[in-house]
Amino acid sequence: MERLPGFRDFYPEPLPQPDLWSADARNYIFDRWRSVARRYGFHEYDGPPLEPLELFTAKSGEEIVGQLYNFTDKGAREISLRPEMTPTLARMVAAHERNYKKPLKWFAIPQLFRYERQQKGRLREHFQLNADIIGETDSAADAELIALLIDILRSLNLSVEDFVIRLSSRNAWQGFFCQANGDRSREYEFYQAVDKLEREDPAVSEQKLASFGLSLAQVRTFIDEARPTAELQAILDNLEARDLRSFVKVDYGVIRGLAYYTGVVFEAFDRKGDFRAIAGGGRYDNLVSLISGGRVNLPALGFGMGDVVLLELLKARQRLPDFQSAIDAFCLIEDEALRSDSLTLIQDLRNAGLAVEYSLVPAKPDKQYKRAQELGAAFVCKLERTPSGTLMVNLKDLKTRQQSTVTPTEARLQLEARTV
Amino acid sequence: MERLPGFRDFYPEPLPQPDLWSADARNYIFDRWRSVARRYGFHEYDGPPLEPLELFTAKSGEEIVGQLYNFTDKGAREISLRPEMTPTLARMVAAHERNYKKPLKWFAIPQLFRYERQQKGRLREHFQLNADIIGETDSAADAELIALLIDILRSLNLSVEDFVIRLSSRNAWQGFFCQANGDRSREYEFYQAVDKLEREDPAVSEQKLASFGLSLAQVRTFIDEARPTAELQAILDNLEARDLRSFVKVDYGVIRGLAYYTGVVFEAFDRKGDFRAIAGGGRYDNLVSLISGGRVNLPALGFGMGDVVLLELLKARQRLPDFQSAIDAFCLIEDEALRSDSLTLIQDLRNAGLAVEYSLVPAKPDKQYKRAQELGAAFVCKLERTPSGTLMVNLKDLKTRQQSTVTPTEARLQLEARTV
Repeated sequence: MERLPGFRDFYPEPLPQPDLWSADARNYIFDRWRSVARRYGFHEYDGPPLEPLELFTAKSGEEIVGQLYNFTDKGAREISLRPEMTPTLARMVAAHERNYKKPLKWFAIPQLFRYERQQKGRLREHFQLNADIIGETDSAADAELIALLIDILRSLNLSVEDFVIRLSSRNAWQGFFCQANGDRSREYEFYQAVDKLEREDPAVSEQKLASFGLSLAQVRTFIDEARPTAELQAILDNLEARDLRSFVKVDYGVIRGLAYYTGVVFEAFDRKGDFRAIAGGGRYDNLVSLISGGRVNLPALGFGMGDVVLLELLKARQRLPDFQSAIDAFCLIEDEALRSDSLTLIQDLRNAGLAVEYSLVPAKPDKQYKRAQELGAAFVCKLERTPSGTLMVNLKDLKTRQQSTVTPTEARLQLEARTV
Repeated sequence: MERLPGFRDFYPEPLPQPDLWSADARNYIFDRWRSVARRYGFHEYDGPPLEPLELFTAKSGEEIVGQLYNFTDKGAREISLRPEMTPTLARMVAAHERNYKKPLKWFAIPQLFRYERQQKGRLREHFQLNADIIGETDSAADAELIALLIDILRSLNLSVEDFVIRLSSRNAWQGFFCQANGDRSREYEFYQAVDKLEREDPAVSEQKLASFGLSLAQVRTFIDEARPTAELQAILDNLEARDLRSFVKVDYGVIRGLAYYTGVVFEAFDRKGDFRAIAGGGRYDNLVSLISGGRVNLPALGFGMGDVVLLELLKARQRLPDFQSAIDAFCLIEDEALRSDSLTLIQDLRNAGLAVEYSLVPAKPDKQYKRAQELGAAFVCKLERTPSGTLMVNLKDLKTRQQSTVTPTEARLQLEARTV
């Protein structure tokens, strides 16, 4: 029986085939996302993977339904697997923001789903870090969020040579569009045309832009020559104080595809340009109000970072750690008469928080030793009974090959001290 | 806009209302599940939340469909949100077991779904730890798995006075049923009748059992008086060696509802009997073969532990920790001329792995100090410029109220040393 197309199984390391997805790599990425977000004072939340369909159409219009993993449930409800987290966040915030101090700094690691026409190797789900700041209009919040994004990528062993944050602003584009006497009712349509410039045939772009009374050259000149807005300059200065300025460049070529962005927008890219965006986000000051039917009005901004492009990049640049299993000790049981006492020792070590393995059933000594090595155990330990009847532990460091024979309590203390 | 009935939002602590679900409590439980499983040498895996419907009907028959969150997708596939993890595990193991050393010791923390007729407060999703050992017939594997279950509950501050593992065996019941000349084709039906004894009107049970030629008294006598089988005695002896014997009692009143169990079965209950089972599991030696169409034949056993009953129990017994946020330092910015230098300090502290908060925008000193206390910050720190122009840090321990004025580097070193 096969899994559904576009879905992933995650296997433990060491992977039996290189094309499988690694549960350890996934957890490594999740751990870094969590620990850096907490360092920045962000708090974790989560919502349901299923939501009413209208939660997503309210924000993005009916045309989004074609990309949703939506269906009718047994209670005749129109529902959808979540394609993004922001509407759920806006719903949750609108329901209970009164009793939280502002600004909220929240993050989540949802699995997201979409149902596009199937293409070979195209996934229908991915995991995505979502980090958001809600309730603060000052660009200091934008800088704090972008600093978080930079530090997360740094924590994954990516440096200023590896990635860049392209920083832009819908406000700057709005200024350009107004100056050019653009039709305000078609503003978002114009942003979508700009968003496609880098991926589209210039002749097609030229034609689209002509419908707004603009030439491709005009737009390109703006992208190449416009100065940072005051809000962008404030963000750059803030990041300069953190010594993070070199990770960012103002680049009006970025405008983001989603309708709801209202101010600063940004995307993280690998500098070599081998991959799609690693992360993207911006301000969406009107969304909480929209989702809450005008009941709650809070400015907000956030970014999303998916696990798939990130993992491709980390693999390509060889920045993933070695996922050797973290066994502290393997207990050899060579004399079956000592199995029961060995279980006592194993329990004692595990009670102390150590990761301990052993052979569940009788096995040849060399086979047990080989297994300890395969598991990457730091130590092997073996109970022995002295001629006087005392139980001692033979402890061997598999790296240094040093051996010693000590009491069970000493063995535990030594292992605890060495594996901190 | 409301979330779907039977689904949960998880909010950060401190909760604005006591009836909300806590993201911190959920993560606390997940962390304990993960850390104890790893201590026992278990490796994490995961599969898709959606699977082909037949993966679940193959094992449990068509009658399970009434309880599934199933639907037809846009590609006309019959699919279902996973109601349990074991079929996915069996599918994954069957696909790649050849290249893993046996026994496999694997765990996962999936979100599971069911669609029952809605009852007030009844959930349609929960999270569940699944821990399984695959490829070992010896009862030493059963003991290892039960020891893991016990140590997970102990790690959550539950003691031998709080919970008990009721240990039973389908083999013992099979012996009883055969001796009583039961119709082998109705064996599973008989187990289901036994499974309901504790929750059903005795008159109904009496009638059901009569159809097997058995009386309620006969069955009760077996439950009360039958001795442990050899396999159960081996497990008890093994747990005795680990000093975990007191957590377990042989209790043939447990038989488990699912069809696929083949040997030892067990459930964890709170001793006061206030809640449904905390966890349950057993051997399912034929399932991998069934799911793989006979291609792979591996003995297996496992248990599941849900987050909902567990959380109810931990709340009722007041065993949850205080989920005060783990902020190491709050940086006070009382002089806006020092904001930029303060950002440099904050970045330096965060780079060292410390969790640091501050006010994104200018705020009155007492308001900043109050916020630091609300966040449960361990320290407040404040940049000051000396008359000679040097930047120093005033560091205050919010618990001891001790203050000192040190260089920025000394401040970082002190904070690092105190928050290990």
